[in-house]
Amino acid sequence: MSNKLRVGVLGASGYTGADLVRLALEHPEMEIAALTANSHAGKAMGEVFPHLAFVDLPDLTTVEDADWSAIDVAFCGLPHGTTQDITLAVLSGHPGIRFVDMSADFRFQDPEVYQSTYGQEHRAPDLQSEAVYGLTEHYRTAIRDARLVACPGCYPTAALMSLLPLVTAGLIDSTDIIIDAKSGVSGAGRSLKQNTLFSETGEGLSPYSVGTHRHAPEIEQEISKAAGQPITVNFTPHLIPMSRGELCTAYLRLTGRATADDLRATLADAYREEAFVHVAAEAVIPKTQNVRGSNHCQIGVFADRVPGRAIVISVIDNLVKGSAGQAIQNFNLMYGIDEVTGLTQQPLFP
Amino acid sequence: MSNKLRVGVLGASGYTGADLVRLALEHPEMEIAALTANSHAGKAMGEVFPHLAFVDLPDLTTVEDADWSAIDVAFCGLPHGTTQDITLAVLSGHPGIRFVDMSADFRFQDPEVYQSTYGQEHRAPDLQSEAVYGLTEHYRTAIRDARLVACPGCYPTAALMSLLPLVTAGLIDSTDIIIDAKSGVSGAGRSLKQNTLFSETGEGLSPYSVGTHRHAPEIEQEISKAAGQPITVNFTPHLIPMSRGELCTAYLRLTGRATADDLRATLADAYREEAFVHVAAEAVIPKTQNVRGSNHCQIGVFADRVPGRAIVISVIDNLVKGSAGQAIQNFNLMYGIDEVTGLTQQPLFP
Amino acid sequence: MSNKLRVGVLGASGYTGADLVRLALEHPEMEIAALTANSHAGKAMGEVFPHLAFVDLPDLTTVEDADWSAIDVAFCGLPHGTTQDITLAVLSGHPGIRFVDMSADFRFQDPEVYQSTYGQEHRAPDLQSEAVYGLTEHYRTAIRDARLVACPGCYPTAALMSLLPLVTAGLIDSTDIIIDAKSGVSGAGRSLKQNTLFSETGEGLSPYSVGTHRHAPEIEQEISKAAGQPITVNFTPHLIPMSRGELCTAYLRLTGRATADDLRATLADAYREEAFVHVAAEAVIPKTQNVRGSNHCQIGVFADRVPGRAIVISVIDNLVKGSAGQAIQNFNLMYGIDEVTGLTQQPLFP
Amino acid sequence: MSNKLRVGVLGASGYTGADLVRLALEHPEMEIAALTANSHAGKAMGEVFPHLAFVDLPDLTTVEDADWSAIDVAFCGLPHGTTQDITLAVLSGHPGIRFVDMSADFRFQDPEVYQSTYGQEHRAPDLQSEAVYGLTEHYRTAIRDARLVACPGCYPTAALMSLLPLVTAGLIDSTDIIIDAKSGVSGAGRSLKQNTLFSETGEGLSPYSVGTHRHAPEIEQEISKAAGQPITVNFTPHLIPMSRGELCTAYLRLTGRATADDLRATLADAYREEAFVHVAAEAVIPKTQNVRGSNHCQIGVFADRVPGRAIVISVIDNLVKGSAGQAIQNFNLMYGIDEVTGLTQQPLFP
Repeated sequence: MSNKLRVGVLGASGYTGADLVRLALEHPEMEIAALTANSHAGKAMGEVFPHLAFVDLPDLTTVEDADWSAIDVAFCGLPHGTTQDITLAVLSGHPGIRFVDMSADFRFQDPEVYQSTYGQEHRAPDLQSEAVYGLTEHYRTAIRDARLVACPGCYPTAALMSLLPLVTAGLIDSTDIIIDAKSGVSGAGRSLKQNTLFSETGEGLSPYSVGTHRHAPEIEQEISKAAGQPITVNFTPHLIPMSRGELCTAYLRLTGRATADDLRATLADAYREEAFVHVAAEAVIPKTQNVRGSNHCQIGVFADRVPGRAIVISVIDNLVKGSAGQAIQNFNLMYGIDEVTGLTQQPLFP
Repeated sequence: MSNKLRVGVLGASGYTGADLVRLALEHPEMEIAALTANSHAGKAMGEVFPHLAFVDLPDLTTVEDADWSAIDVAFCGLPHGTTQDITLAVLSGHPGIRFVDMSADFRFQDPEVYQSTYGQEHRAPDLQSEAVYGLTEHYRTAIRDARLVACPGCYPTAALMSLLPLVTAGLIDSTDIIIDAKSGVSGAGRSLKQNTLFSETGEGLSPYSVGTHRHAPEIEQEISKAAGQPITVNFTPHLIPMSRGELCTAYLRLTGRATADDLRATLADAYREEAFVHVAAEAVIPKTQNVRGSNHCQIGVFADRVPGRAIVISVIDNLVKGSAGQAIQNFNLMYGIDEVTGLTQQPLFP
Repeated sequence: MSNKLRVGVLGASGYTGADLVRLALEHPEMEIAALTANSHAGKAMGEVFPHLAFVDLPDLTTVEDADWSAIDVAFCGLPHGTTQDITLAVLSGHPGIRFVDMSADFRFQDPEVYQSTYGQEHRAPDLQSEAVYGLTEHYRTAIRDARLVACPGCYPTAALMSLLPLVTAGLIDSTDIIIDAKSGVSGAGRSLKQNTLFSETGEGLSPYSVGTHRHAPEIEQEISKAAGQPITVNFTPHLIPMSRGELCTAYLRLTGRATADDLRATLADAYREEAFVHVAAEAVIPKTQNVRGSNHCQIGVFADRVPGRAIVISVIDNLVKGSAGQAIQNFNLMYGIDEVTGLTQQPLFP
Repeated sequence: MSNKLRVGVLGASGYTGADLVRLALEHPEMEIAALTANSHAGKAMGEVFPHLAFVDLPDLTTVEDADWSAIDVAFCGLPHGTTQDITLAVLSGHPGIRFVDMSADFRFQDPEVYQSTYGQEHRAPDLQSEAVYGLTEHYRTAIRDARLVACPGCYPTAALMSLLPLVTAGLIDSTDIIIDAKSGVSGAGRSLKQNTLFSETGEGLSPYSVGTHRHAPEIEQEISKAAGQPITVNFTPHLIPMSRGELCTAYLRLTGRATADDLRATLADAYREEAFVHVAAEAVIPKTQNVRGSNHCQIGVFADRVPGRAIVISVIDNLVKGSAGQAIQNFNLMYGIDEVTGLTQQPLFP
C-alpha cells in the first residue's frame, strides 16, 4: 500500500487543473486519487486533455461524486466564486482534508474587498479568516500549518515577488508604483470567449481591463501590509499572442539616495536561498522564454534614464509559478516535503 | 508620357522599403522609377520579396548606378548612418531631388544628441539643419516646403501622437512621463540576429534596450520643445511575438484638476479633422489588430485607479504610420496632393 | 446622385463579410448600402469589427430590416444552410437583385450531393439549378450573365486552380489525386469553438476532418466534370497556427511520358493572361506569405523523387481569393467592370 | 563519490544540445561532466541559453579542451559533417567512451548514399560500419551493445515509427508511399537564416526542399530494409509557424483486402508494450500539441475516402523523440537503465 498523499484535483478540465496534474505526475509523494470536472464527468482525462492521454489517471467525476474519504488534499482549479461553497461543504464532512486553492475565492482578507472586487458577498467568511495567502517565499511559516491556502493570482505573484522586498526595505515610494503587466492567453482560461480566439489574438497586442483588473486590489492588499499604510497601485494588463508566460514591468520612484543597484542587492539578499526566485545580474534582461513550463521566477533591476527612478522586471510562467507550481510548492511546505520536490523540471525552450 | 512623380526607393531590400513599394503601387501619382539595394543589385524585386513578384517593378540596382536624372523624389529606407552620405552626394549633383528619409539620420536637430545617441559624428550637418521632422500632423507647414523630411521613428510616432497635445495643453506633468512600449518583430528589420529568430521570439516576451533605447532621446527632443524645457522620459520597449504593430502605454500624472476626460477631449480636439489619427470613445481600448497594414493611429485615454493619474494608449502599424505610410503622407503634403492619397487601405484583420 | 452599384453585405459580422467590406471600400464602383448581422443588429460595424471603425459605414441591421429596394447586389457571408432561404425570399420580392454567395449553399449542382454533404435537403432547388459556380478563371462566360453566383470554398479554389488544367489536359491520373491541405484559423470563422482558441491552436498543428471534410465532394464535382468521369480524391486538411492563408500540396501521378515541366508549361499557358493566377518559375516554392491579404493565387510545380510523379503546390489567402476577393472579381465580371478593380492591393508582408 | 554516468554534450549551444541538457538534469543516473561549444567556449551555459541559468552546469569549453578521461558517454549535437572527425579523434584516444550521435553523420549504412546526400566523402567509414541506427523501438538489441548510436533524423523518426510495421506486415504498397511532413522552426537550428526569422515565418506556411530533402534517403534506407527491395518515397516538408513539433501525414495504398482497421491493429500490436509510442483509437486525430516537450509519439490511422487507400498520421516533438529524448532513451538501453528514466515528463500544454 502506498504512503503517498492522495490528491484530488477539482476543476481538472481547466488549464490550471491540467497543469497541476502534469506536475503531480512527476511528484514522488503524490497519488492522483480523484479528478473532478462537472461538465465532463464520466470522460477520461485524455479525452478532455489529449496531452494527458498517455498516463493512467482516474476518470473525471462530478465534485459531488468524489470519494472524499480517499482524499488527503484537494487542489482547486475551479472558477472564481464556486470554490467557497465546495470547500465549505467538503470541510464540514471531512475536516481533515487540506485545501490548496488556485481560485480567487480566499485571497482577500477583507470580505468587503472581496465583495467589491468580485461582485458578490463571500459565503464562507470563517474559512476566509482561516485561509493563508500562499505566496510561498513570503508566507512560509503560516503556510506550513495551514488547512486552507489561497494561492495568489498569477499577476500578483509576478508583481509581488519583485516589489515586496523593496517596499519592506523602504527603497521605493509605495505611493508611486506603476505595473505594466503582460500575459499569455492561457491566463484567460479554456472557456470560450471571442477575444481569445486565435484569429483575434494572433499577430496582435491588446490591453484589457485598463484601470479595473481584479488583480489590482490583490496586489494592493499585500503592498499595503508591507508598507504599513493603504496603497493604491497602477496595474495595467496586456494580452500577448503567446500561450504561456507573464511579465511585469514595474516603474518605481526611488526614495532618498537609493539606486537601482541598491534595489538589486536587496532583492538578491531576499532571495539568495531560494530555489525558484532568481535575481539577474546587472544588464541581464528577464524574458518569459527563460521560465516557460517551470516554477522559476526571474527578476531584473535597471536604472531608468529618468533620475531617481528604476525599472524592475519580473517573469513567471502564469500556469506554474503563477498557479499550479506554486500550489505544489505550498503543498510541499504543508506536508514537510522538500520544497522543490516535483518542481525540478527546467524550462522548455524553444 | 506620364505626369506621375518618379520615385526612387533606396534600401528596397528592407521591410520599410518593401512596404513603401507596396503602398506606392496603389498611389495614382507615383511611378516607381528606381529601386536600390546594394547587396542585391541585379536581382528582380520579386526575388528578394516574393510577395512583390506579381507586379512590374524595376530591378534592384546599387545606389551608385541609379539614374538620378530620372528621379523626382527619393524615399530612403537605408540603415542608420548611411543615409547622410548618400543624400549629401546625390543632392550635390541633383539639388532638385526631394528626400523623404525613413532612417534616423536626420531626426535630431542637435548634432551632439545625434552623436551621443548613434555613436558617430554627423557628416552632413548642413542638411541636418535643413531637415524637417516629419511627424505629419504636427509639422505640416514645414513639411510642405521641405526638401528633406526626416520621418520619425516608429516608437516616437506612436508616443508623440498621444503625448504632444497633452504636454502643449499643460494637462500632464512633463517631468513624470512613463512610456511602456511594445513592438512587433519587423521593427528589428530583416537583418539576421539571433533574438529575432522565430524559435527565440515565438511564444515569448522580451524587454530590450531597457533604459537605453535610441528612440528615447528622439521622443525627448519633441516633448522638450512642446514643454518649453528639457525633459527626460522613461521609455522601455518590449518585443512581442507578432510581425507588425506597435503600442505605447503611457502612464501620466495629471496637473491641477485635470481628468482623464479632459485629456480625451483635448486629444479629440487636436485630431478632429485628421484622417489617420483617431481618439477612441471612453472605455474603447485600442489594440494593434485595429490598425494592421494601415496608416491609422488610434489613441485611448483611461482614468487610473491611482488618483491624479491617467493612462494613454496609442497604436500604429510600425511599418506604415510608423514608417512608409507616414513617408507617403509627407510626400503628399510636399507635392500638394490630397494627404490620404495612396493610404486609404483599411486594416487587414484578422 | 451616385452611379455606384449599391451593395448589401449579408452576414457582415463574420470574417468573410468583414473582408468583403474592407475590399469594397477600395472599389470605385461600389457603395455599401446595407450591412446585416442579425445577432448584432443596431450596432455600428466598428463595434463588431474595430478595424473598420475609421470609415463611414451603415449600422448593422437584421436581414429582415434591410431595404432591398436600395440594393443592387447582395454578397452573402451567412452560415451554411441559411443563405438559401434568404436568397429565395429576397428574390421573390426583388427579382432584379443579383447575388454573390460566399456560403456553400449553392455550390453543388446535384442536390443529393448537397444533402449528403450538408445533412439537409436543399430548400431552393430551382435557384440551385440557376446558380453558377464562381471559380472565376474557369467559368467566366456563365458568371457574366448570372443572377446567382456560388463562390467556391476556399480549399476548392486553391486545389482546383492548380488541378483543373492538368486534368483537362490529361497529364495526370485523375483517379490518383492526393491533396494535403493546410489552412489558417480564420477559415473556421468567428464563432466560438474550443479548437480555435489561441491556447489550443498556437504552437501546434492539427489535422482535422480527416477523410470527411465537406470540401472534398466540392472538389470532386469539378474534377469529375473536367475528367469526364466520377472522381474521388483524397483531401486532408490541417489547421496551421496562423490567421490567414491556405496551401494545397497535391501529389499527382503523371500519365504517359508527362513530366513536371509539362505540367508547369500547361498551367503557365492556362493562366498566362490572368491577373491573379501566377505559375512560379522552376524551383520557386510558393508560400502563403506571398499572397496574404491579396487576391493572388500562386502555383508551383515540382518533380517528385518518385519517378512518374509530380508535386503541385498552390497558395491563396483563404479570405480573399478563397472568398471575398473572388466574390468581388465575380461581381466585376457580372457588371462589366475591369476584373481587377478593387483588387489591386498587393500582399501584406511581413 | 557519485556512481552516475559522466556525460559530455558536444554542441551544447544548439537546440538539440540544450534539450539534451534539460532532460539530463532530470535523469538520476546522469551527471553532466562537460559541455562543449567551440564558438562560445568560456561562457556559462546560462549566458548562451538563459533558460538554463538556474542550475549548476559546467562552463562551455571547446571540444579540444574537454577532459575526455572524465567522460563516460558523449552526446553529439554538432553540425552535420563535423561529428565524424571528432568521434574518430576521441575514440582513438579513449576507446571506452560511447557515443550517442544526434547529427546525420552515421545514419547511412551505405557511404555512397551519405556522400550523395551530404555532398562529401565519409571520413570515418569504419565507424560508420560500426554505428547502429538508433530508432529505439526497432533496433533495441543492437543499440544495447553499441559503442556508437546514430540517432535518426526527426522526420525519419516520425515517419518510420508509423510506416515500418506496415511495410513489414505487407499491408501497404511500399512503392506508393507519400509523406507530407510538417515541422516547427526549431528543426532548422539556431544558426542565422533569413527564412527562420520571426517576420519571415510567422503568420505563414512554407514548403521547402521539395523533392530534395536529405531525410528522404534516410527514410528510404529503412523502408527498403523492411520491404526487402529498394524503395523510393515521396517526402515533402513544410515549415510551420511554431517552434516545436513535427507531424507526418502519410498517404498509403493498401494491399489486398487490407483496411485502415487492419493497419491500426497492426500498429497497436507492434507498440502495445511501448512506453512512448501510442496508437490512437479510431477517429482520434493526433496533433503536435499532444506531445510537446515529451518523448511521446502518437499515431492515428484513418480510412481514406478513396477506396483502397489509408492515411496515417504521426506526431512527435522534433527536439525530444526526434532528437534528444530518443538519444537518452538509447543511452538508457546502452547502460541497462529502465528505458523511461529521465523521460517521464508529460507534454507541456498549452
